Amino acid sequence: MSTLKPFSMAVKAVILDDEGRCLLIRRSAHNTNFIGCWEWPGGKLDPGESFDVGLEREVMEECGLTVDLTGLAGAMEFEMPKVRVVLLCMEARQTGGTIRMSEEHDDSAWIHLSELKNQTLHEHHRQFMIDYANSKALTP
Amino acid sequence: MSTLKPFSMAVKAVILDDEGRCLLIRRSAHNTNFIGCWEWPGGKLDPGESFDVGLEREVMEECGLTVDLTGLAGAMEFEMPKVRVVLLCMEARQTGGTIRMSEEHDDSAWIHLSELKNQTLHEHHRQFMIDYANSKALTP
Repeated sequence: MSTLKPFSMAVKAVILDDEGRCLLIRRSAHNTNFIGCWEWPGGKLDPGESFDVGLEREVMEECGLTVDLTGLAGAMEFEMPKVRVVLLCMEARQTGGTIRMSEEHDDSAWIHLSELKNQTLHEHHRQFMIDYANSKALTP
Repeated sequence: MSTLKPFSMAVKAVILDDEGRCLLIRRSAHNTNFIGCWEWPGGKLDPGESFDVGLEREVMEECGLTVDLTGLAGAMEFEMPKVRVVLLCMEARQTGGTIRMSEEHDDSAWIHLSELKNQTLHEHHRQFMIDYANSKALTP
């Protein structure tokens, strides 16, 4: 038997607009950690749930929007106390809905990718988000 | 409703040994395409199957090995006629078993990462595999 921690998959949506901005939402005091940090919408997959269905569900729950997933933004990995998380990030476009926060977040903002580095980002995702923004700046 | 193709997830294992080699398997004439091309073991997830369980299943089916998944190698995306495939590649170590091909493959080889570029690789994965090998060469 392996002594490695089990894996878990989480998903995030980089919801982009026509001005090169992405939607960030801010973690509320309802969370136990990373309060006040900005992040892309998303979360853990439910057991048996495919990544695209789970991501569309999380986006609706966390910010009230319907989206089309348009492509892969990238993947990263980080350790949690009991699991190793593979985080799959997908680019998306808003197709409907209006922004509405769940109790897990208390604010939202459309931030240009070039300005991501100046935000207080969730530390697990910060470097990945900045690397993504830099890679998009190189591919017009 | 979106007019975009649905997504499907596939998984591949970069099974590494202590000499910096990875296991490649060669697609047999039993396949309808890419016959004779070398690839990492893996395949599509079954409905409701988590990526780690599905990948360990595919590795056993395709090459007869048990593996520990040790980390994320990366992710890529490609188009198929009816779906958009997100391919998640995980690094792995052999923990047991002996190499045994299914009818989908007819040969196997342990190839050093620096030699991947000289192989006849599955064209959907070729550039990703070479980029991965180059990135590993930079991180001893």
